[in-house]
Amino acid sequence: MDMTKQLEKLAVFKKLHSNFFILPNAWDAASAKTFEKCGFKAIGTTSAGIAVSHGYADRNMPFDRMLDTVRRIVQTVDIPVTVDMEDGYGQTPDEVAESVKQVIKAGATGINIEDSRMDRQAPLLDIPVQQKKIAVIRELGNAMAYPLFINARIDSYWIKSMPPARRLEEAIKRAHAYQEAGADCIFVPGIQDISDIQTLRHEISCPINVLAGPGMPSANELEALGIQRISTGSGPFRAALSLLHRMGQEILEKGTFEHMTSRVLSYDDLSEK
Amino acid sequence: MDMTKQLEKLAVFKKLHSNFFILPNAWDAASAKTFEKCGFKAIGTTSAGIAVSHGYADRNMPFDRMLDTVRRIVQTVDIPVTVDMEDGYGQTPDEVAESVKQVIKAGATGINIEDSRMDRQAPLLDIPVQQKKIAVIRELGNAMAYPLFINARIDSYWIKSMPPARRLEEAIKRAHAYQEAGADCIFVPGIQDISDIQTLRHEISCPINVLAGPGMPSANELEALGIQRISTGSGPFRAALSLLHRMGQEILEKGTFEHMTSRVLSYDDLSEK
Repeated sequence: MDMTKQLEKLAVFKKLHSNFFILPNAWDAASAKTFEKCGFKAIGTTSAGIAVSHGYADRNMPFDRMLDTVRRIVQTVDIPVTVDMEDGYGQTPDEVAESVKQVIKAGATGINIEDSRMDRQAPLLDIPVQQKKIAVIRELGNAMAYPLFINARIDSYWIKSMPPARRLEEAIKRAHAYQEAGADCIFVPGIQDISDIQTLRHEISCPINVLAGPGMPSANELEALGIQRISTGSGPFRAALSLLHRMGQEILEKGTFEHMTSRVLSYDDLSEK
Repeated sequence: MDMTKQLEKLAVFKKLHSNFFILPNAWDAASAKTFEKCGFKAIGTTSAGIAVSHGYADRNMPFDRMLDTVRRIVQTVDIPVTVDMEDGYGQTPDEVAESVKQVIKAGATGINIEDSRMDRQAPLLDIPVQQKKIAVIRELGNAMAYPLFINARIDSYWIKSMPPARRLEEAIKRAHAYQEAGADCIFVPGIQDISDIQTLRHEISCPINVLAGPGMPSANELEALGIQRISTGSGPFRAALSLLHRMGQEILEKGTFEHMTSRVLSYDDLSEK
């Protein structure tokens, strides 16, 4: 993608965060295209969806394959694409910066970077370690003259070793630290309680991203609470697999094809742009 | 995959055709794994699903990407995998044989090879041309000491230039010709009429594969008619995309996430084997 077009998409994407929007997460070009056709203004990727769709466990996806999927998605949709970079695809800040550089070169508008390795028993990464990572990514953006959108994910609500009473306080502390290091937005998956969301919103000046899912307030309520961005994570991917599972059960148990044929687009619809 | 294991899968797959089974068509490792978990005994691939999931139109998928997807599917499931080779990924019989060789080396148990280029206005390929292709694939199997399962697709019901009254007669003529050239099974997508199916079954001695879909008899009826194999084609893929479309519309129009969260497997379920 030429840099002018990529910068335009970045401007569009940044502006979405000054108001409110919902970002669905895709795992391949077809899911991305479908979301674009629905009318979403931007899409993210889901690392879990990309990994599992390639036959890997989440966190075990080879970077080159992930990058290739990003490239296919970016070349298939016209809207901005932000990439779930997990904990950065690198052991050192420099390695992480190199991975981010590849993702930006592939046409991505922004990234998610998280502060755990999703071993839910292990503690969060130390704040200075994560700050350094974010700062190096921000420097990379400056060096590339492409100020990519950095969404810093805080896993205090997801890490089992974190006492529930400390999750909010930890999220606020980290949000400040990551914003200071150069993050444009903070993402707190797992936060659900309305009073927690209110406190977080009150304490933090940058845009906030939360995760849709069971037990969450509706999009309208979250918008009213001052949230800028709702993402879906692997929800749509899991819903698609669940449908396939029900479809398979119906076919094998009843010999019928209701799930496969009811309200389903035709072969010719597949090639429709 | 070692040859002993691949030959075992081939024996299992051949045996399925002596009775009756349903073959769902996957487009990535996740859909394949889901079908295996449902209890299907074998899976096929869908060229349309693989192409569109990578952001290509059906018939425009680069062979190497298709092959890579096959490799990921074969490495993710334990059941036999048969690959939709479209019209063979090659201009000449030798090029087609080389593509088939790559697919077998990737671990596939069998292939589909079709006699049109799915330009629905264009005529079917000449019978001797298609026979030569099938014969060269059969020779390849002999040379590799791997007698791959060849499913010869006949597109007489799908090609618009074929007068409806001639579809059945053409299918029967081609079925004989392809069986003579080395096909193990013939696949007639688009055939729906019970009397056509009965006539085809009466005229042909090898296993017959038909395509599930709207307007088709149930699996039990098809089994009773003497059909050995029902495949789904791109149906499950299209159903998954249709679900995503409804989900996206619900999210954007209502701000709710019912399609995404109702009866959906959890994140932890994703890593379950």
